[in-house]
Amino acid sequence: MILVYDIEERRVVKMLKLCRQYLNWIQNSVFEGELTEVKLKELLHKAKKIMNIEKDSVIVFSSRQEKWLDKMVVGKEKNGLDNLI
Amino acid sequence: MILVYDIEERRVVKMLKLCRQYLNWIQNSVFEGELTEVKLKELLHKAKKIMNIEKDSVIVFSSRQEKWLDKMVVGKEKNGLDNLI
Repeated sequence: MILVYDIEERRVVKMLKLCRQYLNWIQNSVFEGELTEVKLKELLHKAKKIMNIEKDSVIVFSSRQEKWLDKMVVGKEKNGLDNLI
Repeated sequence: MILVYDIEERRVVKMLKLCRQYLNWIQNSVFEGELTEVKLKELLHKAKKIMNIEKDSVIVFSSRQEKWLDKMVVGKEKNGLDNLI
């Protein structure tokens, strides 16, 4: 599962903190990880409370099987362990 | 295929223009679309010329079949037609 957000600056810290409770932070506004349906709903429910629905957006891409999704990184990669808050 | 970048501000316009030549811009620094292996190589080759490899990053997620990747949008969605430059 990949989550990307586009949030106005004054709300971004809250959103970052929320997403890091559920997923691994891999880039600026991009997270990845595995979530159950229930956990995803919970995350999106909390996210909506932070967001201004008119201005901000969150997109979730999900693949039913991890092996179906390839990932290629060019340049600097964030530490894979920074989800351990 | 989903492409996300994290680029320093002074290089971001160049990168945005480049990516829009190949993919649909769906959010802040996120693009999606279908590219052949050759076109992807071409895009990444050009991207590397713009990037500072020590500071910037580009991540490409690809799914071998489109139907394997679900997408969910919460909040404002960019116009799906803005890839027509």
